[in-house]
Amino acid sequence: MSVTEDAPRYLGAEGKEKLNNRLKRIEGQVRGLRRMVDEEAYCIDVLTQIGSAVSAMEKVGVFLLKDHVEHCIRGSIEHGGEDADEKIEELTATVERFLRV
Amino acid sequence: MSVTEDAPRYLGAEGKEKLNNRLKRIEGQVRGLRRMVDEEAYCIDVLTQIGSAVSAMEKVGVFLLKDHVEHCIRGSIEHGGEDADEKIEELTATVERFLRV
Amino acid sequence: MSVTEDAPRYLGAEGKEKLNNRLKRIEGQVRGLRRMVDEEAYCIDVLTQIGSAVSAMEKVGVFLLKDHVEHCIRGSIEHGGEDADEKIEELTATVERFLRV
Amino acid sequence: MSVTEDAPRYLGAEGKEKLNNRLKRIEGQVRGLRRMVDEEAYCIDVLTQIGSAVSAMEKVGVFLLKDHVEHCIRGSIEHGGEDADEKIEELTATVERFLRV
Repeated sequence: MSVTEDAPRYLGAEGKEKLNNRLKRIEGQVRGLRRMVDEEAYCIDVLTQIGSAVSAMEKVGVFLLKDHVEHCIRGSIEHGGEDADEKIEELTATVERFLRV
Repeated sequence: MSVTEDAPRYLGAEGKEKLNNRLKRIEGQVRGLRRMVDEEAYCIDVLTQIGSAVSAMEKVGVFLLKDHVEHCIRGSIEHGGEDADEKIEELTATVERFLRV
Repeated sequence: MSVTEDAPRYLGAEGKEKLNNRLKRIEGQVRGLRRMVDEEAYCIDVLTQIGSAVSAMEKVGVFLLKDHVEHCIRGSIEHGGEDADEKIEELTATVERFLRV
Repeated sequence: MSVTEDAPRYLGAEGKEKLNNRLKRIEGQVRGLRRMVDEEAYCIDVLTQIGSAVSAMEKVGVFLLKDHVEHCIRGSIEHGGEDADEKIEELTATVERFLRV
């Protein structure tokens, strides 16, 4: 069963804009990487830029994770918690996939 | 002192195209993430997509790392290795920064 | 202010034993690593073993994280949630530190 | 074919002692983790300690990686490089496994 449909809505206008700005910046970083490769920038400089884009992406992940716990998980527990077990299971499976352990 | 200027040239036409294609795909993934957030996709699905983009990015990093060892490091050792120590130091510093240890 | 004192108790006898067994195995892996270095095992084999110990350790981390959300976070939300905000903040800060972003 | 047998010897007495000391400290950290769990330390404190042991382990990994490039890879390239391709392939496969990408 998917838990998507009835998931409490998230982020809010401010959060969405913040996230959108961060993702736009990451998109720019990736475009910059293509240019660097095209112009044959020094590998180490490209690798440094990749590391920075990966960090920025993982920060976005943590931002979303926090919002998810604050809204979806918290909401689910507050409203009786019938699907709270399932949501917590889903959360840790996601963190596991994220850490690739 | 920068070791950039005289670094042996890298990748070749085929490698550059492969890398460019991979980065284009990642750029698309990040753009897709913006759309997902805009359409309020379920956080867990967004997180899964972020994890996938991070993996793809790190794969590009390893691809570049390999090319760097095969060309820059190897070339530097073969041609007398005057700057080989420096290049190896630089390589491990980059891996360290990449692993953020 | 520390949130330690009144934290709901965790794990249970079964969880504690499971965790203890996993940590004992990791301790053995690290001891094995010392032996490998002592016997001058091939670096790549040592690196593989390190990667395996790191994975095992991160799995223990996710196990604890799950238990923490299931008990501490959930309990805090169920019991009125006065310190829930603080606990969620603390949780994401920990995940951030864990991912080192 | 294994590349182990004829691998140039590594680390040296000083490097081996340094590595042994670091691994002993990590072994102590893991033992400390078992004690923390036994005494029901706060999950977040245990997680922080796990993160620190993981970092220490990855630092050992980078230390070994550097030694491997400096000795095995470099030696292999300097001595004609017949197995250099194989060794570089092996190195990047190891980094890939380490990053789990």
